[in-house]
Amino acid sequence: MHIAIIGCGQLSRMLALAGIPFGFKFSFINDAEDQDTVCVDGLGAIVEWRSGDSFHTLYSVLGNPDIVTVEKEQVDISLLIGLQAFCSVYPDPKAFAICQDRYKEKQLLDSLDIPCSSYVHDQPLSVCVETLSLPIVIKSCRDGYDGKNQWVLKTPEDVEALEQILKDKGISSKDYIAEQWIPFDKEISLVSVRSVNGEARHYSLTENTHDKGILKQSIAPAPNVSEALIEKAQDYLSRIVNDLNYVGVIAMECFVTGEKLLINELAPRVHNSGHWTQSGSKTCQFENHLRAITGTALGNTHNHGVAGMVNLIGIEKPSLKVLTPDSKLHWYNKSVRPGRKLGHINFQKADLDQLQIAMNSFSKLSDTEHSD
Amino acid sequence: MHIAIIGCGQLSRMLALAGIPFGFKFSFINDAEDQDTVCVDGLGAIVEWRSGDSFHTLYSVLGNPDIVTVEKEQVDISLLIGLQAFCSVYPDPKAFAICQDRYKEKQLLDSLDIPCSSYVHDQPLSVCVETLSLPIVIKSCRDGYDGKNQWVLKTPEDVEALEQILKDKGISSKDYIAEQWIPFDKEISLVSVRSVNGEARHYSLTENTHDKGILKQSIAPAPNVSEALIEKAQDYLSRIVNDLNYVGVIAMECFVTGEKLLINELAPRVHNSGHWTQSGSKTCQFENHLRAITGTALGNTHNHGVAGMVNLIGIEKPSLKVLTPDSKLHWYNKSVRPGRKLGHINFQKADLDQLQIAMNSFSKLSDTEHSD
Repeated sequence: MHIAIIGCGQLSRMLALAGIPFGFKFSFINDAEDQDTVCVDGLGAIVEWRSGDSFHTLYSVLGNPDIVTVEKEQVDISLLIGLQAFCSVYPDPKAFAICQDRYKEKQLLDSLDIPCSSYVHDQPLSVCVETLSLPIVIKSCRDGYDGKNQWVLKTPEDVEALEQILKDKGISSKDYIAEQWIPFDKEISLVSVRSVNGEARHYSLTENTHDKGILKQSIAPAPNVSEALIEKAQDYLSRIVNDLNYVGVIAMECFVTGEKLLINELAPRVHNSGHWTQSGSKTCQFENHLRAITGTALGNTHNHGVAGMVNLIGIEKPSLKVLTPDSKLHWYNKSVRPGRKLGHINFQKADLDQLQIAMNSFSKLSDTEHSD
Repeated sequence: MHIAIIGCGQLSRMLALAGIPFGFKFSFINDAEDQDTVCVDGLGAIVEWRSGDSFHTLYSVLGNPDIVTVEKEQVDISLLIGLQAFCSVYPDPKAFAICQDRYKEKQLLDSLDIPCSSYVHDQPLSVCVETLSLPIVIKSCRDGYDGKNQWVLKTPEDVEALEQILKDKGISSKDYIAEQWIPFDKEISLVSVRSVNGEARHYSLTENTHDKGILKQSIAPAPNVSEALIEKAQDYLSRIVNDLNYVGVIAMECFVTGEKLLINELAPRVHNSGHWTQSGSKTCQFENHLRAITGTALGNTHNHGVAGMVNLIGIEKPSLKVLTPDSKLHWYNKSVRPGRKLGHINFQKADLDQLQIAMNSFSKLSDTEHSD
């Protein structure tokens, strides 16, 4: 079984590491000029592809993979469709076409009667403000991740400043949506997996903490969440994956306000908020993505106790001395840049109190201990 | 951190796969003419070494590793000592010198007052039989693994036949030991790990089933074993690793008769009877070996429920269809040969009954389902 992955980042790395034990062979498609391939170096052939290159040549240089999959939303859909002529491509290009565009994503949610924050599309900022009232969030329809291309507008001055930015950047009203600002209690995500044969499994709901739009840490199962809310989240995502006939791992990011759940974003891929599954679940999200796309029975998604993850962002590789018996380092070998996700540490404990003590003491240590 | 491993088999493969997430770099030393390197292909540089080759050249071609470790008992000790001039080598060559030789191993156990089966060394077969009484087992002091170079003698005719074999093969009485045949109730093993800083942890005791001397399956924690017996095993192995100032994972294989424990063999490395730890323990033996040799806090060795492992011996790669939500395939990519360990399947369940049902139904399936 040969699987080619589009993208050469840490998600591809962890997918390959989860699949090599099965005897799967991997190759990688580097479709971005500036993408660093160090994450997947040594794990399989790396093939460059640029828009306009022959799909036939690409497929044959890859070594005729049985399946193509993807590690990122922002993939060239023509590449997916081009490769479909030669082998299975999971998830389906349709899922990317929708998830790449916030407006299309909103339309999908609306069509399935799944709640998301109120929004306005294709209107000047003034109309957005009038319709939704400040504060609002302006999000570019495309290329928004880790807080990029998003603007929170609280005052008329913010609106004025952004008007200028949009003008300077040539961003038209079709290119963004305006959303009501949600004063949420917490952010959670649900990572689920659906197989080629339609079988689906959900992981425990995860509580996430972001800093400047970048995921900082996750805890699962999400504490203090009602059974009803869990069922609601699972119901929403089940409707989405069934509607899309989705194959693979998918993440749904939500805002929680009381018992209310608003969908913020869908990610059609293994997701940072599911990294804790490597230590905290009977089957990690990476293995289950591969099981899903190869038609293998999905792995058990039950939790081992409680689990947490802390992202290592823009810092040197921490010393191995910071690791405890219940924590595990995942380092991606990327070069250090401010704000860049360079690794993560997974924690696994018997109960939430112990988990929080472990995660807090790591946060303290990580400020001082850098070496190796 | 760069770790070089002597050996290119499945144990090296699984060590590397456990270490890559930490950002460790690996290289491999192929010191056996006929060794297939397919298990580690792509996971790091593979360097050939033959007795007499320069250690300095080897070290530099490897890329100046920080640590050298070993995947097998039958390693050339001069290679270990030669590399000690350039970097740390764990476990210490002394441990290999002892474990490579059944007589030296027996002497170590005797010196630590740890029970093993009665034995005779450096005597003709007739004296062995006279001293121990039939049935006895003759084991070559060196190069014995997976039931190779072992002979069970039940009748005077067996003795006569072996006398001829030893003569034909030029095996002298110094080259073997004779052991009393142990009518054991079961075979168990204890896999433990000890760090450079002296910290040690034990895994759950494992019950093993062999077929023609080759490990067929393991279950952990070993069922129906008293707490006293577990403590006895841990005490014995603790004494051994402390005496040797041992660093890394070690396995102790034992016979159990009632409450009596007899040590059969020590393996100074990650061990087939510890493969279940990949699914069944909070930290697998491969990761803990790397933590031990790098001085990282040892990982938690507690079980996740009950775990089992079935070896895939001499058969084609099983179809992915045989996998269930609680089983996981590890395939080594080696070419198929009768009697060869080609992969294993790990099982993880909440209780023993469920585990045995899962393992039994796999055994049935594996007879019929071969493809992929």
